[in-house]
Amino acid sequence: MRQVAIIGIGQTPVDEHWDKSLKELAGEAIFAALHDAGRHTADAMYIGNMLSGILSKQENIGGLISDWIGLPGLEAEKVEAACGSGAAAFRAGLMAVSSEEVDSALVLGVEKMTESLPIETTEALATAADADYESAQGLSFVAINALVMQLYLHTYGWKHTDFAPFSINAHANGLHNPNARLHEAITQKDYNNARMIAEPINLLDASPTGDGAAAVLIVPADSVPANGRPVVKVTGSASATDTIAIHSRKDPLWLAAAEKSARKAYDQAGVGPGEIDFFELHDAFSIMSVLSLEACGFAERGQAPRLGMDGQITIGGRIPITTRGGLKARGHPVGATGVYQIVEAVQQLRGEASPTQVEGARIGMAQNIGGSGATIITHIFKKE
Amino acid sequence: MRQVAIIGIGQTPVDEHWDKSLKELAGEAIFAALHDAGRHTADAMYIGNMLSGILSKQENIGGLISDWIGLPGLEAEKVEAACGSGAAAFRAGLMAVSSEEVDSALVLGVEKMTESLPIETTEALATAADADYESAQGLSFVAINALVMQLYLHTYGWKHTDFAPFSINAHANGLHNPNARLHEAITQKDYNNARMIAEPINLLDASPTGDGAAAVLIVPADSVPANGRPVVKVTGSASATDTIAIHSRKDPLWLAAAEKSARKAYDQAGVGPGEIDFFELHDAFSIMSVLSLEACGFAERGQAPRLGMDGQITIGGRIPITTRGGLKARGHPVGATGVYQIVEAVQQLRGEASPTQVEGARIGMAQNIGGSGATIITHIFKKE
Repeated sequence: MRQVAIIGIGQTPVDEHWDKSLKELAGEAIFAALHDAGRHTADAMYIGNMLSGILSKQENIGGLISDWIGLPGLEAEKVEAACGSGAAAFRAGLMAVSSEEVDSALVLGVEKMTESLPIETTEALATAADADYESAQGLSFVAINALVMQLYLHTYGWKHTDFAPFSINAHANGLHNPNARLHEAITQKDYNNARMIAEPINLLDASPTGDGAAAVLIVPADSVPANGRPVVKVTGSASATDTIAIHSRKDPLWLAAAEKSARKAYDQAGVGPGEIDFFELHDAFSIMSVLSLEACGFAERGQAPRLGMDGQITIGGRIPITTRGGLKARGHPVGATGVYQIVEAVQQLRGEASPTQVEGARIGMAQNIGGSGATIITHIFKKE
Repeated sequence: MRQVAIIGIGQTPVDEHWDKSLKELAGEAIFAALHDAGRHTADAMYIGNMLSGILSKQENIGGLISDWIGLPGLEAEKVEAACGSGAAAFRAGLMAVSSEEVDSALVLGVEKMTESLPIETTEALATAADADYESAQGLSFVAINALVMQLYLHTYGWKHTDFAPFSINAHANGLHNPNARLHEAITQKDYNNARMIAEPINLLDASPTGDGAAAVLIVPADSVPANGRPVVKVTGSASATDTIAIHSRKDPLWLAAAEKSARKAYDQAGVGPGEIDFFELHDAFSIMSVLSLEACGFAERGQAPRLGMDGQITIGGRIPITTRGGLKARGHPVGATGVYQIVEAVQQLRGEASPTQVEGARIGMAQNIGGSGATIITHIFKKE
C-alpha cells in the first residue's frame, strides 16, 4: 500500500447559511482545498454526507457537485455512515489513492441542516439509530445519549457537574476558530445552570448542528511537492462497527468500535496513546468524549472525567482534545464533521492553529463516530 | 494494484417482500454469497443502497447489517450514487482489496422499496435528479426519461414501436431467472398496446422497482482456492459523472459518463467492444439501453435500435444484453441493481446461466447508472 499525504485543506464556517445551498457550501470548501494545495483538479471525489436525501431531497450528489465545481466527468460518490460519514469518505479516498486507482482525491464532507424544521432535523438524525428498536419507540438521538450518560453516572459515581470541563475546554478553544459555530466562553456555573434537554444531558453537554463543508486533497506521499510546508502523512486508518442499538451491547459504556479502530490505527502507525500529541474526538455529547478517551486508552474505564478535572485535555495538557472547538463549539454538521476534524488536525500539524496551537505537535489523531458508537473511524496523522 | 476476483455470489428474488425487512434481505444475500465462497466472514463490507434513509427511516446500515449477520465489529459503510449505488459499492470494495487495506470484502446491494406508498417511492426516486431544477418543477424520474426518449425519436427518426425488442428480449430472458420479478413473455403487440406512463414511455418501456438484495465476496486474485470452478477476475473498473440535470448537457442524447467509464474500463482490460461476450446494461427504461449501447461503442450514434431489430441483443446474437432479465424483467431494486448485474455476469462466466447461457462467454461487462446518466460505473470481468 502506498503512503498518502494531505496537501490541501479547506472549510466554510459552520453556521446557518441561509444564502448557500448544499452544492455552494461544497464548492467553497473544495476551491479552498484546491487553492491551498496549488492544484486545479483531482482524479476523484469522495463525499461524506448523511442527510441530503432526507433534508434537501437530493441524492446523487457526486454528479451534482462535480458539475457545480466545473469538473463534470469526475469520478464521485457519496459515502454514508451517519455522523461518521466524513471520516468514512476520507478512508474511501485513502484506499482509492493507495490502491493506485486514482492519483489524487478530493474528500469532501458537507451537510445542510438548518433550512429544515427542527422536528424534521431531529427525525432525520434519528435515522442514525435503530429504526425498529430505538427511533420507532420515540427515542430521539439525544435521548439515547442521555440514557448512556445516566448509566455512566450511576455506574462510576460521578456527578453531572464533573463533565463541565469538556464543554468549557471546547468553548475556550472554539473562541479562536473563525470557522466555529459558537464563539462564547462558558464557565462551570453556566454549565451547571444550563437548560435541561434530556436528563442528564443539558444544553451545554450537546453539540449544535449546522450547515458546513470541509474538504481535503490527498495524494501519494511520494508525490508531494517540496514547498517548505510540513508534509502531513496518514499513518493509521481503521474503521469498525458495533451493534447499532445500545441495548444490544454487552457493555453500553464501552465503545468497542472505538477501541477496535484505534488499536488498529495505533498498530499501523507504530504508536500508542502515549505518543498522540492531540486528539480531535467526537464530542457530539460530553459523554461521548469520556467514552472515546477511555476506549482509546487515554484513561482507565470510568476515569476519563478525571482528565477534564485535572486540566489534561486543554491545549497545554497531557492530551489536548477538541483543539479548534470540537463538535461542541465548532459545530456538528453531521456528515461533514469527520472532514472538519481532519482539516483541524492538519492545521495543528502544520503549526497553523495559533492561539490554540499544541506546541511541538507531531502526531495527531481524529476519531469520527456514526450513531451512538455503531460506526467508528480512527485516523492518525504525522508531520514529517 | 493487486488483481481482484469474485469468489462468491448470492441474491434474493426481486419481489414485494412484505415479510422481510431491509436487514433480513441483506442477510439472505450475504449468507448465500459466503456459502457460495465457502467462507464464514470477510474483512469489510461495502453496501450499495439509495433509499434506506428516506423509505425505511434508517441510515447507518453498515452497523445495522453487520450486527444482524452476526459480525458486529466488521468495517462497513454505505455507498450512494442513486441507482448506481450497487456498482459504486463494488468499486469501493475493489479498491479496498486492491489497496491491501483489507483481504476480503463483501459487496452488498440492498433496497426495500415496496412497503412505502407509491407516491413516496416516486418522490424518493426523484432525489436522483436535480432537486432545484428538475424535481422541484414537478419532473418525475420517468418524465425525465420520457423527454430524452422523445428527443431521440425526433432526432433520429425512429418510431416508438422500434424499441420493443429491448423489452421483449429482457422478458424472454427473465422468464428463466428464478430471481426475476416478472416471469412473463411479451410480444410486439403487447408492447405496442401497453398503457402509456409518460409519453412516449409506456409500461413496457419501464423497469419495475422491487425489494431485493444481492451480494458478492471479493478477494485478491492470487488467493483464490483451486476448486475446479472458473476464476472470475475484475479486469476493468471505472466510474465517471456527468451533469445531474439533463438540460445542462451539450448533447442530452449522449451518455458522456458511460463513454468515459467504458473507455477507461476497456483500456484497463485491454479489450474493446468487439471482445465483450455479453453486456449487463442498465435498462431502467428502454431508451437507456439504446443510449448505453451507443456510448459504449456497440452501435453508431442513433443506430442502436437497429441492434434490437436485427436480433443482435439476444442470447445468440452479436452482443447479448440483459441476459437474466435486466432491470426490465429481473426488476430494479435501485441501490441493489448494480450488484445483481455483477452476480449475473459471474453466473454467465461460470456457465451457470442455462437456459440463457451465452455459449463460450469469457468476457462480460456490466454498467450501472445513477440518475439519468449522472453517475455511471462500468466493470469488465474475465473468466480464467
